[in-house]
This record gives sequence, structure tokens and C-alpha cells, in this order.
Amino acid sequence: MNTLREAFLNELADVYDAEKQLTKALPKMAKASEDHSLRSGFQTHLKETENQIKRLDQVFNAIGEKTKSKRCKAMRGLIEVSEELIDEKAGDAALICAAQKVEHYEIAAYGSLRSWASILDEPQAARLLAQTFYEEKDTDQKLNDIAEIVISLEESEEGHAEH
Amino acid sequence: MNTLREAFLNELADVYDAEKQLTKALPKMAKASEDHSLRSGFQTHLKETENQIKRLDQVFNAIGEKTKSKRCKAMRGLIEVSEELIDEKAGDAALICAAQKVEHYEIAAYGSLRSWASILDEPQAARLLAQTFYEEKDTDQKLNDIAEIVISLEESEEGHAEH
Repeated sequence: MNTLREAFLNELADVYDAEKQLTKALPKMAKASEDHSLRSGFQTHLKETENQIKRLDQVFNAIGEKTKSKRCKAMRGLIEVSEELIDEKAGDAALICAAQKVEHYEIAAYGSLRSWASILDEPQAARLLAQTFYEEKDTDQKLNDIAEIVISLEESEEGHAEH
Repeated sequence: MNTLREAFLNELADVYDAEKQLTKALPKMAKASEDHSLRSGFQTHLKETENQIKRLDQVFNAIGEKTKSKRCKAMRGLIEVSEELIDEKAGDAALICAAQKVEHYEIAAYGSLRSWASILDEPQAARLLAQTFYEEKDTDQKLNDIAEIVISLEESEEGHAEH
């Protein structure tokens, strides 16, 4: 069996690639958004994601390792689905749902990473990873708030179209 | 743009397939678990997942639609990663992390679905979907609890091996 440190390094390399993939997907999601607040939400999260990548470099540095990246198939699948939704013009509600799945992927990943860093006695890494963990949770909550506005607007427009 | 009802039906078909895929993956994850409580946790969640599939049939029925299923690429990616971890003998901590990513995928999916069902004035569907939403959150929490026990055991064994 692998050690916890090996699992930790493997997961760091996975989430590093996941964040990199996300920086390419977010501009497309922003462009496809109908609602202004959703579009600017995706743009803000792009800047945050770029910062989170730099923070991962700091984590690797703090634990005395070189930055590693490993193709994250799970994020690939999540992004493929969001690209399909864009092509199908599935609408803002569906885009928000796809984005929240991405956020939840990251919440699960950073949740394990920050806890493993503490157990492995890497307090600086644990602090940096916790910072990103709470940012991802915050983004998920913001998407909830935007969803409430966007969906009520969509529904009222559909209601008007029916009359 | 698609209507919210179209997004709702599309997401139901996605999560239906995701749950079906999960019923095939969970027995492999149970078999690969070293820790007894983790193994039985996966077995319990398999029964719960089978029940959640039946509940999705009830949701389709409640909204007057036939059950639909649509290949969920995101769950495919999540499960592929967990299969790689099993092959690599990555250990229980890594398995728990993979399982929590699956739970978080479902939390995001059912979170949107239950809210959309309410907005679409489908109270029976909303009630059923909320039930699964809370079950998934509960499973994620149980995995947190198991992780604490499993990882402290692993660490103490590694510590012993070093001496």
C-alpha cells in the first residue's frame, strides 16, 4: 500500500492539472452566460483559479518538492459536460449546475489535502490548502446566490412568453 | 435557450446514469478497502444507491415522464480515477478521497435538481430529491468520520514500520 505522503503528492498533482484545465474552460463558460452577474462571476473565479495555481506552487515548495501535474480525468469529464451544455445552449441554470459540480470536485479534493497536510505535519501547506478550500466553498455559495436570481428571471421570461 | 424544465429532465437523466455507474463501482471499492469500517461503509452505500435509483424512477413518475438515462461522462471520469487508485494500491485514504468526490458530484447535482423541482412546481419530485440530497451529504460526513480513524491507523502503522 502507498503511504499517505504518496497519496498526498498524487492528489496535489491531480488538482494542479484540474485547476489548469479550469483556467481554459472558465472563459468559455463566461462567454456562454446570458446573465451579467454570472458572466462576471466566472471571470472573477478565473482570476481566483490562477491565484490558486500559484498557491499550489507554494505548497509544493513548502513541502520541499517540485511542482508536479498529472492528467485529471475527472475534471476532463466535468469540463466535457459543460462544453456540451454550451453547444446545446442549455441556459444559465444548467451552466451554474455544471460549475457547482466543478466547485464540489475541488471542495472534496482540498478537503482531503488540507487534512492530510496537517496529519503529515506540514503546517504551512495545510494553511495554504485550507485557504483555497474556503475559497471554493465561497464560490459554490456565490453560485447558489446567482442561481436564485438567474432562475427567477428565466422563469418570469418563460411565463411572459406563454401569455 | 432551453427551458428550465428541459435542463431539469436532462440533469435527471444524467444523474440516473451516474447512480447506475456507481452501483458497478462500489463493490470494487469495497473489495479494495483495507479497513473493515470503510468496506462496510461502501457496502451500505451500495444499498442506498440502489434505493436512490428507485427514487429517481418515482421522480420521473411524479412529473409524468418516462425514466430517461444519459451517459454521464463526469461520473465516468470520477470512477476511472478510483479504478486507477485501486490498481495502484493507493490505500484507504486515497479511496476515501475518490469516494468523497463522487458524493460531492451528487450533492451538486441533487442540490440543483431539488431547487429546480420546487421552482417548476413539482413538490413531490422536490421532496424525493431533497431526501437523496441529504443522504448524499450524510454519506460524505460518514466518510469524513471513517477517514479520521483510517488515517490515524495508517499513520501509526507507518510510524511503527519506521522504528
